[in-house]
Amino acid sequence: MSLSLNQWTTRRWTVAEAVDGCVRHGVEAIGLWRQEVEAQGLDETVALVRDAGLRVSSLCRGGFLTSGDALDDNRRAIDEAAALGAPCLVMVVGGLPGVVPGEPLGEVSKDLAGARERVASALEVLAPYAGERGVRLALEPLHPVYCADRAVLSTLGQALDLAEPYPVEQVGVVVDTFHVWWDPQVFEQIARAGERITSYQVCDYLHPLPADVLLGRGMMGDGVIDFGPLTEAVAKAGYAGDIEVEIFNADIWAADPDEVMATMKDRFTHLILTS
Amino acid sequence: MSLSLNQWTTRRWTVAEAVDGCVRHGVEAIGLWRQEVEAQGLDETVALVRDAGLRVSSLCRGGFLTSGDALDDNRRAIDEAAALGAPCLVMVVGGLPGVVPGEPLGEVSKDLAGARERVASALEVLAPYAGERGVRLALEPLHPVYCADRAVLSTLGQALDLAEPYPVEQVGVVVDTFHVWWDPQVFEQIARAGERITSYQVCDYLHPLPADVLLGRGMMGDGVIDFGPLTEAVAKAGYAGDIEVEIFNADIWAADPDEVMATMKDRFTHLILTS
Repeated sequence: MSLSLNQWTTRRWTVAEAVDGCVRHGVEAIGLWRQEVEAQGLDETVALVRDAGLRVSSLCRGGFLTSGDALDDNRRAIDEAAALGAPCLVMVVGGLPGVVPGEPLGEVSKDLAGARERVASALEVLAPYAGERGVRLALEPLHPVYCADRAVLSTLGQALDLAEPYPVEQVGVVVDTFHVWWDPQVFEQIARAGERITSYQVCDYLHPLPADVLLGRGMMGDGVIDFGPLTEAVAKAGYAGDIEVEIFNADIWAADPDEVMATMKDRFTHLILTS
Repeated sequence: MSLSLNQWTTRRWTVAEAVDGCVRHGVEAIGLWRQEVEAQGLDETVALVRDAGLRVSSLCRGGFLTSGDALDDNRRAIDEAAALGAPCLVMVVGGLPGVVPGEPLGEVSKDLAGARERVASALEVLAPYAGERGVRLALEPLHPVYCADRAVLSTLGQALDLAEPYPVEQVGVVVDTFHVWWDPQVFEQIARAGERITSYQVCDYLHPLPADVLLGRGMMGDGVIDFGPLTEAVAKAGYAGDIEVEIFNADIWAADPDEVMATMKDRFTHLILTS
């Protein structure tokens, strides 16, 4: 397993800058975000990562399946992942219909079970489409603090229940330390996941959380997560792909991205690779 | 099932004022907090609730078992619950050792599994002590957002795993809508809980959460929770006790407690009793 830069960690960088940063810092893989790929241009991004010799570890992100018709946009995201040679499209499935991150509640649905059913229904359409293009949908359970506004998919066990009706090539799961560290079932569910694990993402869980809980993710070592047992469990389950460092954090976004890269490499070596 | 005022909802009121408020508003039961009981005096509190004809639905709270030796303090809390005729002592089990709510991280333990084992060990001592005094320990799973600093007990399923080795008279569980609404297993675990359900607490989950996530609890109807299915599941599991309204919320604490009581009664009638 080796280090991949999820480009949201160095959010100020364009795709071209992040690719260049990876080369300069000896990072062999990158996780890309759709809006940044679009800004750079899809064809140009394909050329940049190919010429740099980087692997694309994931494309972030599809999903938001609970409100309105998101199928066309997700098909486009799958096409982009295929073009980029990304093994998976990370899926953040969406929250309760009408609940907008950061905005006061307006007219919303409180039908959580219904929202979860909409996710399952959308997978029936998207899973075969992804499989035909050599892309796996990577269902990402998000920490329950995001259940209302970002993902009604809240645990790894729930993600596996959704994934298992499909061939393993079509639907997998993301294990992100920030989202799963608290889960009493996490080790049992990582073992169950086995080859369904499509992406392993690491960052720390900060305490106290900042006012915007979305930005409560920290550099490994800055929070409360014990990475050893989680990384060992993911390895034991058979995952041998890249490990993405994905950090949403106002201080890290404000810092010099080259310093962030250096710290990330150091922490990765001492806190993740030693597992 | 009938309404109980958890006195933290009208936090400005002393025990005497809250007892008087319950009588004035026709609320027949009250959930008490230890520090308020101490301020009023235990004997005086016993007399106040008896003379007012109120039931004590719970005493909040014991626990904090993960750091240091909390056994003596929990024995005292059990004795107080017995004196008050409270059927249960609500247990908030504590977070990672060294993590302090609201404070920056200092020297802390990241051994989550170890912290959970300490809770199990403490129950071996406290459960029989409580049972002998006619008090049930009510294990309260807290929303995973509090796993680091307040409770390493994060799901109802995990609480039941801890409770089930003990007689049902000794160890039960709390179902609090704020803490469990997101859990994909909640209905299955409420059914499993059956007569282990010792307390049913209701309040809403606000969106967006305030900067201090502890205060993200709202009056029923002000957040994203659909109370009907949860209340029906608790009733179907056999729970027929009081339903406590327990709200931690800066605006509600700043409001006139009599207005809070009136709103609480109205929302309870229209959103909880109709289930």
